[in-house]
Amino acid sequence: MASDLVLYSYWRSSASFRVRIALNLKGLRYETRAVHLVRDGGEQHGTGYAALNPQELVPTLIDGNRVLTQSMAILEYLDETHPQPPLLPADAAGRARVRELSQVTGCDIHPIGNLRVLQRLGSQFDADDEQKAIWMRHWVATGFHALEAMLASSKDTGHFCHGDTPTMADVCLVPQVYNARRWKVPLGDYPTILRIDALCDSHDAFRDATPDRQPDAPSHA
Amino acid sequence: MASDLVLYSYWRSSASFRVRIALNLKGLRYETRAVHLVRDGGEQHGTGYAALNPQELVPTLIDGNRVLTQSMAILEYLDETHPQPPLLPADAAGRARVRELSQVTGCDIHPIGNLRVLQRLGSQFDADDEQKAIWMRHWVATGFHALEAMLASSKDTGHFCHGDTPTMADVCLVPQVYNARRWKVPLGDYPTILRIDALCDSHDAFRDATPDRQPDAPSHA
Repeated sequence: MASDLVLYSYWRSSASFRVRIALNLKGLRYETRAVHLVRDGGEQHGTGYAALNPQELVPTLIDGNRVLTQSMAILEYLDETHPQPPLLPADAAGRARVRELSQVTGCDIHPIGNLRVLQRLGSQFDADDEQKAIWMRHWVATGFHALEAMLASSKDTGHFCHGDTPTMADVCLVPQVYNARRWKVPLGDYPTILRIDALCDSHDAFRDATPDRQPDAPSHA
Repeated sequence: MASDLVLYSYWRSSASFRVRIALNLKGLRYETRAVHLVRDGGEQHGTGYAALNPQELVPTLIDGNRVLTQSMAILEYLDETHPQPPLLPADAAGRARVRELSQVTGCDIHPIGNLRVLQRLGSQFDADDEQKAIWMRHWVATGFHALEAMLASSKDTGHFCHGDTPTMADVCLVPQVYNARRWKVPLGDYPTILRIDALCDSHDAFRDATPDRQPDAPSHA
């Protein structure tokens, strides 16, 4: 039952943002439970939450008695349990491409610039905010350079990353673009990424999932 | 056709190691083309390879006219195109769990300690080998602490990470354990991980995929 869905989420978390988009695309209602990643040393490290999610990361999705973590695994789960509209194409090659594009972001950009990594740069290397920003910009630029090439060179790219309807690849891309803007990464070299991001921003499923519209965003607090 | 499979691989790359295990589990023959990640500044950055893989990372799998990158996407592709033996269970909850376990390694341990990240720690923060080792040990320990809890606490854990046959979760775990040993990460706190790793090591599919047995390993060069 859709009303059983509970998302442990932080408004500005890219991984939570992904799951919110997917839930919206599927038309699934869910209850948000905010996990503040900064306050009190990070609520994700509290005993109660750590019992749900031993990685002490967001998001965690509760579906009835199932506890689901890892955002890309959750996207696949939602696609299997609620197949319409699909987040993956029907053919194996297309599915591989969508997962590949998703993982460029989900494996090779986002985790390297995650909050806990930036915190570690501070504690191990005395990195200040400017050095953290340089780190972030380097990895976003590295990943987007590849992603732009992969998108611009393929006939499979349509209005969206793959074809003319949103897939998991768009669900992963849009939060990373939001994050890139937050860190003031220059985006002029990525016209295909920007075109797709702008199109997604015209869809309610994406817009309603944006950080600023979440119940735990500071403007709503 | 299996004989069309070509794997661009580096003997010590964890992500290449994953794909080698999966190919072996599926009984698929493939040709290895070595990409030396260190020699000459890294052969993955050469024009020819970068045209195949814009991320300039290994592995890349060629299946006929298909060019596949991102190791976890490749595992899913192999499972869809060669379903037996399966790398994922049949039920949605089980599939979610296997992907979740895989992504703990594939998203939140491995990419943060990848060669290019260590190189960046050197260039941006003057990290020496000892500081890089401390960084590696921190992220492996953080990830394995969570993974051990997830494995030890679940009735779904069997002889392997999920049930009594190898899945994608084992395929991702074993190369990370190899990598942890290489970086001398203390592993005594992870008895379930060690038990599963030892079992995998008794299977030819895993053993034949180990770095030391690859044609580009130094002992074979």
